[in-house]
Amino acid sequence: MAKRKMILDLDTGIDDSLAIAYALGAPDVDLIGIMSSYGNVYVEDGAVNALKILELLGHTDIPVYVGESHSSTSDHFDRMQVSANIHGENGIGQVELPDPSRPVEKGSAIDFLIDSVHKYGKDLTLVPTGPMTNLAAALKKAPEIATEIGNMTFMGGALTLPGNVTFVAEANINQDAEAADAVLTSPMHSTMVGLDVTLRTLLTRKETQQWRDLGTVAGEKFADIVDYYIDAYRQFNDNLGGCALHDPLAVGVALDPSFVQTLDLNMRVKYGKEDYGRTIGDENRLNEPTNVKVAVQVDKDRYLKVFMDYLTTLFKNNK
Amino acid sequence: MAKRKMILDLDTGIDDSLAIAYALGAPDVDLIGIMSSYGNVYVEDGAVNALKILELLGHTDIPVYVGESHSSTSDHFDRMQVSANIHGENGIGQVELPDPSRPVEKGSAIDFLIDSVHKYGKDLTLVPTGPMTNLAAALKKAPEIATEIGNMTFMGGALTLPGNVTFVAEANINQDAEAADAVLTSPMHSTMVGLDVTLRTLLTRKETQQWRDLGTVAGEKFADIVDYYIDAYRQFNDNLGGCALHDPLAVGVALDPSFVQTLDLNMRVKYGKEDYGRTIGDENRLNEPTNVKVAVQVDKDRYLKVFMDYLTTLFKNNK
Repeated sequence: MAKRKMILDLDTGIDDSLAIAYALGAPDVDLIGIMSSYGNVYVEDGAVNALKILELLGHTDIPVYVGESHSSTSDHFDRMQVSANIHGENGIGQVELPDPSRPVEKGSAIDFLIDSVHKYGKDLTLVPTGPMTNLAAALKKAPEIATEIGNMTFMGGALTLPGNVTFVAEANINQDAEAADAVLTSPMHSTMVGLDVTLRTLLTRKETQQWRDLGTVAGEKFADIVDYYIDAYRQFNDNLGGCALHDPLAVGVALDPSFVQTLDLNMRVKYGKEDYGRTIGDENRLNEPTNVKVAVQVDKDRYLKVFMDYLTTLFKNNK
Repeated sequence: MAKRKMILDLDTGIDDSLAIAYALGAPDVDLIGIMSSYGNVYVEDGAVNALKILELLGHTDIPVYVGESHSSTSDHFDRMQVSANIHGENGIGQVELPDPSRPVEKGSAIDFLIDSVHKYGKDLTLVPTGPMTNLAAALKKAPEIATEIGNMTFMGGALTLPGNVTFVAEANINQDAEAADAVLTSPMHSTMVGLDVTLRTLLTRKETQQWRDLGTVAGEKFADIVDYYIDAYRQFNDNLGGCALHDPLAVGVALDPSFVQTLDLNMRVKYGKEDYGRTIGDENRLNEPTNVKVAVQVDKDRYLKVFMDYLTTLFKNNK
């Protein structure tokens, strides 16, 4: 099987950890690097968490780059308390993992992305599951990557449902609406995997128990990490009955678009006072060719089956 | 051809006049009555305008009922200046039409709707293209009509585009968000024809010229009325290049759903301070069977062809 080159841009984060596991478990992925972003955690902590998760899953060969530490319109980032509540103070459900045996890369995350697009072009898939700050910075520095990249599938936004930070804004987009707008109004084609589908794609303790029952370190640690997330969801979103698989669903859709039904739109991200972070159709480009596919319905049962197949096999093999 | 019983609920209005013409021009419609609502005009003026348009098109046989004069949460209605700007002070583009030769019906619009649903059931199609106040009042008085009615297709709302009154609210819904929410969260099935599709379905002076060229009174009067609307659109929505066929598109979709692609959702209408009038997916009914089909894409070329076919034939026959 020809493997697809993939870069993840993560603010790791519990569901980001699941995105890493999905990419490592998918047989058709060659994960060539991880970029770290701020959001669920500070950018440095996200990078260290990514290294820890990679190591837990037997990988010390995948580089982790530190990206932008704050939004494109600010000079610093303050982590929201709700992020600590949902992901744990350490970002991975207060679960202790060994310090990574290797450091983050010295090079720039932005340059790593640009160089990778130049090198792999249409063979490269980028999955950002945090703020769009890194990608917007790369597009500003090297606009040609917009049309060179093969696949950009992001977790973020909400079109058919209210936001989860404000009534119009989803958390990732809300971190840097201006950056997200620059990306969506660029010539880059992308698929938006937002709350519209991720809130319908849930994991419960029934599934994490299957990982725990494997008797492996990876299985047990991931069960602990995700149970923290499920408990947080119970506290904040009691009506859902599980935790949303936000970030790993974006990886899944990047690999198999048939998991979702999409709507072809030209999208904007608004950044006014009232509508900051709103992902919405662009009323000024109603009749132009579209560049965003917005996922609006999901085959959650089939996705969950593949998700559990990939992750359980991965955790079983990491004793 | 078995004709479908149809009731229009209108705040007539220029595009409401086009909705009347579409229903009269469609070979498969038996228009059994018009309910008047407030919105583009005051409710009494809307009723008189409907009578005038019916008469212009040779119909003195279709009853017009006066509905609610203000929203379900207020005790009066003040017409917005923008309504006069777009539809003309008289609601029909400042075009003079003879006073109607007959009065409005004495009975209640709400009771007419309820009785018609009881009488025709699944054979009845209701197309509200103004506020939902009349329909919500009927549902409150006779909840059983929610599941008895055959087809409810409304013009209103915006899901994938910003609103046209506030950044979240479309004009019809904004008149009475509470009423619209009561309708959408009732067991009634409906199809939402909102700005998502109506702003993509435009009429220009090229088409109105074809009506003018017919040399009939109906053709000339409708060309005058709609040219007023097109000029208003040029002033307020210069980027569109025409006027939106809001209300007649809803009638078209009620008769031929294949004009649009729809998204199955459970919808809410929000009525908080910030999000008043927002039509959005209901985050508390994510996993329940859906009752609203939201039109998100439109075959505007095919629709416009049918629209022009129906209306031109109708205007040609009304000398």
